Amino acid sequence: MNVEEYMVKLGQQARRAARLIARADSGQKNQALLAMAAALDANRPALIEANAKDLAAGAANGLDAAMLDRLELKPATIDGMIEGLKQVAALPDPVGGITDMNYLPSGIQVGKMRVPLGVIGIIYESRPNVTVEAASLCLKSGNATILRGGSEAIHSNQAVAACIAQGLEAADLPAETVQVVETTDRAAVGQLITMPEYVDVIVPRGGKGLIERISRDAKVTVIKHLDGICHVYIDAQADMSKAVNIALNAKTHRYGTCNTMETLLVHEAAAAEALAELAVGFATAGVELRGCEKTREHLPTINAATEEDWSTEYLAPILSIKVVADMDEAISHINAYGSHHTDAIVTENYTLSRRFLREVDSSSVMINASTRFADGFEYGLGAEIGISTDKIHARGPVGLEGLTSQKYVVLGDGHVRK
Amino acid sequence: MNVEEYMVKLGQQARRAARLIARADSGQKNQALLAMAAALDANRPALIEANAKDLAAGAANGLDAAMLDRLELKPATIDGMIEGLKQVAALPDPVGGITDMNYLPSGIQVGKMRVPLGVIGIIYESRPNVTVEAASLCLKSGNATILRGGSEAIHSNQAVAACIAQGLEAADLPAETVQVVETTDRAAVGQLITMPEYVDVIVPRGGKGLIERISRDAKVTVIKHLDGICHVYIDAQADMSKAVNIALNAKTHRYGTCNTMETLLVHEAAAAEALAELAVGFATAGVELRGCEKTREHLPTINAATEEDWSTEYLAPILSIKVVADMDEAISHINAYGSHHTDAIVTENYTLSRRFLREVDSSSVMINASTRFADGFEYGLGAEIGISTDKIHARGPVGLEGLTSQKYVVLGDGHVRK
Repeated sequence: MNVEEYMVKLGQQARRAARLIARADSGQKNQALLAMAAALDANRPALIEANAKDLAAGAANGLDAAMLDRLELKPATIDGMIEGLKQVAALPDPVGGITDMNYLPSGIQVGKMRVPLGVIGIIYESRPNVTVEAASLCLKSGNATILRGGSEAIHSNQAVAACIAQGLEAADLPAETVQVVETTDRAAVGQLITMPEYVDVIVPRGGKGLIERISRDAKVTVIKHLDGICHVYIDAQADMSKAVNIALNAKTHRYGTCNTMETLLVHEAAAAEALAELAVGFATAGVELRGCEKTREHLPTINAATEEDWSTEYLAPILSIKVVADMDEAISHINAYGSHHTDAIVTENYTLSRRFLREVDSSSVMINASTRFADGFEYGLGAEIGISTDKIHARGPVGLEGLTSQKYVVLGDGHVRK
Repeated sequence: MNVEEYMVKLGQQARRAARLIARADSGQKNQALLAMAAALDANRPALIEANAKDLAAGAANGLDAAMLDRLELKPATIDGMIEGLKQVAALPDPVGGITDMNYLPSGIQVGKMRVPLGVIGIIYESRPNVTVEAASLCLKSGNATILRGGSEAIHSNQAVAACIAQGLEAADLPAETVQVVETTDRAAVGQLITMPEYVDVIVPRGGKGLIERISRDAKVTVIKHLDGICHVYIDAQADMSKAVNIALNAKTHRYGTCNTMETLLVHEAAAAEALAELAVGFATAGVELRGCEKTREHLPTINAATEEDWSTEYLAPILSIKVVADMDEAISHINAYGSHHTDAIVTENYTLSRRFLREVDSSSVMINASTRFADGFEYGLGAEIGISTDKIHARGPVGLEGLTSQKYVVLGDGHVRK
C-alpha cells in the first residue's frame, strides 16, 4: 500500500467512526477521556522511553535547543496532558444542544441542534502533547480525528497514541475515532488535506511556513491564523498607569505567543509621558525598541523602524513603536499592517472606545486589557484547538463549539405548507 | 483592460466599499433599500424595455419556455422585488449585535460582536430578480457584493443595477457597495472565484452543473447545496392521516424546488394502508411512482425503481418509494442516498422521533411536518440567500446571520495577564 492509499484507508475509517462518535453519549466520551488520562499516568516510563528515542534522533539531526525543548516529554508535560484530559471531560458536551426553538406563524416549531463537523485533520509540528490536546477536544465535540505530528516526534506520538487507544477501548468506542498517522512520509500531509470526501476541516498548528503551505493547497476549510501581529494603542485620554501596565504585559509576559504585542501605537499627545515610562520598563526587561521618526524624537537612542517592521511578527523581545496623530490613524495602521488577530486600545474616552470596538477588524478587539488575554481558557471556552483570524465558520479562539455546526430541527403535528 | 483585470478592479473597489458599508448605520442601509424600491417602481418602463431585449435574444437563441419564464420581468415580478426590499429593510440589523457578554474570573468581560463577512460574490443564472434579492441581503448584513448574472439576462440586470445604484446614492453610500458585472465573458466567473484577497465568500445559485463547477474551482468558501434529495419516512406508528397529508404536500406542493420530497420511505407494517391511500392521491396529481420490490407487491402496476432512482433529484412529478423494515433502515438509506438537505419522519412514537432528530445528518430534520417548510421565510429568518448542505460556517437556510461572522470583544479596566 502506498502512502496515498494508506491515507485514504485512514480517511474511510475515520468517516465510519465519525458516524458512531457523533451519537456517543456524553458519559461514554468522558469515560474515554478519563481512561486516556489513566493510561498516560500508567505508561509514563514507556512515554519517556519513546520520547528519549526522538530526543536522541533530534540531537543527532541537529535540532536546535528550542525545538528539543518543545519535543521533550518532561514529567510536568505528562502531568499537563493528564490534567488537560480531565478538564475536557469536565466541560459541558456541546453536541445535541438545541437553541432558539420557537413557534412560528405556520404552527411549526423551529430550532437549531448542535452537531459535530465529522472528521478533523490536525497537522502539527514537534510538540507531542498536541496529540492529546487535539484528540480530546475533537472527541468531546463528537468528531473523529486524524492526527499528523512532526516526524521528529514520531516515537513519542505513537506512544501517546497507544494510551489514547486504551482510553477509547475502555469506553467501548471505535479505535478509529482517533488515528495517529504512522508514516513520516510528507506525501501523507498532501493527501490528508485534499480528500474532502473523508476530511471536513483541517487545523494546522505550527510555524507560518507550514500553515501557509497547507492553506494554499487544502481542498477543505482550514481553521488557522498565520500571524499574530497584535497592537496596543495608547490614546491621548489613556490612564497612564493602565497604559504602561498593559503595554509591558502585552509585550513581556511571553515573547513567543501569537497574542503578544508586536507594535505599540501612541497618540502624539501621550507620547512624551508614555514613552519615557515605557522605555525604562522595556529596558529592564531587555526589549529592543524600534521607532518611527516621531518616536525617536522622544527616544533618540533607539533604532529606526523600517516599513518591514510594521508587518513583522517578532516572537522575540523586539517591539516596534509608532506615534500617531489620532485614533483614526491608529485604526488605519492596525487594519492595514495587522494580522486581524488581537488589538487593544487604552483609553478612558467612551466614544473612542465604542468606535474602536466596532471599527477594528480583528478576531479579538479589547479595551483597557492586555492582548495576552486572547486565549480559549481566558475567554471561558475551557480549552482551544487554535485561534482563527478568518471570518468563515469560527473566529478568534476556537473551542468545542468551533468544532461543531448546527442543523435545523422542525417539530410539527401533521403540518403541511399552504 | 482584459476581463481578469476588470474583475480585479471590481474586487479592489468592493474591498474598499466593504470597509465603509461595514460601519454604515442601520438607518442609512434601510434608507438605501427603500430608495432602491422607489427606483424600481419609478423605472418600470425601462426595466420592461431592457427585459424585452433579453427575451427577444433568448427566443432567437432557442431558450426553452421554462427559461424564458424565469427570465421574464412581469409586473408581478417587479412588485415582488419591491416588496422584498421593503421586507429586508424591516428586518433587524444583525451587524454590531453583542451576545454572551460575561464577566470572567480574571475580571475581564468577554462577548461576541456580529460583523459582516466582507465581500460576497453571487453567481446566478437567468432570474433578474435574484440581483435585487442578493444585493439587499448582502447590503443589510453590511457586506459589499459583486453580482454575476446569466448572460441571457444582461440587459435586465443592468437596468436593475441602475435602480440599485440610485438607491445607494440616495443614502450617500458608495456606489461600489453593489457591483453588477458588465461583461458576459465566462472568464469573469473564473476570476471572481479565485481572488480570495478581494472576495470572502461565493454564493452560487442555479443548476447543479454551475454549482459543481464553482465548488470545484473556487479558492474561497462556497455557500451552497448541490441537490435536494429529500425524504419522508412514514413509520409504523405514524398517524395515517398526517402521513398522507405530509407526503402529498412534500411531493406535490411544488415539483421544482430543492425541498420537495424525491423518495418516500415506508415502514413495512404501514405499507399496505399508506401506499393504497397515497397511490390514489399521487394518481390524481399525476405523479409517476417508481417502487422497490416490496412496494410493487402493494402497487403492482407501477414501475420498478432502479439503484439510480435513490440518488436522483427529479425536480418533476416523479417519486421513488421504498419499503423498509424499520427506522434504522430508513436512516441508513437517508444518510447514504440523501443529499443532507431536508428529511422528515411521520410518527407518534416519542423515542423514535428523538432518535431520528439526532441521527439523521441533514441540514433540516423534521418530525410530522412537510419538507416544504425548509425555507428562510418559513423558519423566521425573514429571507434567505440560499440553503447550505455543508457543515462549515452556515447550514440550512442562510439568512442575514449566515452572511456575518463574530469577533470577540474584551472589556477591561487595566487588566493584565497574571
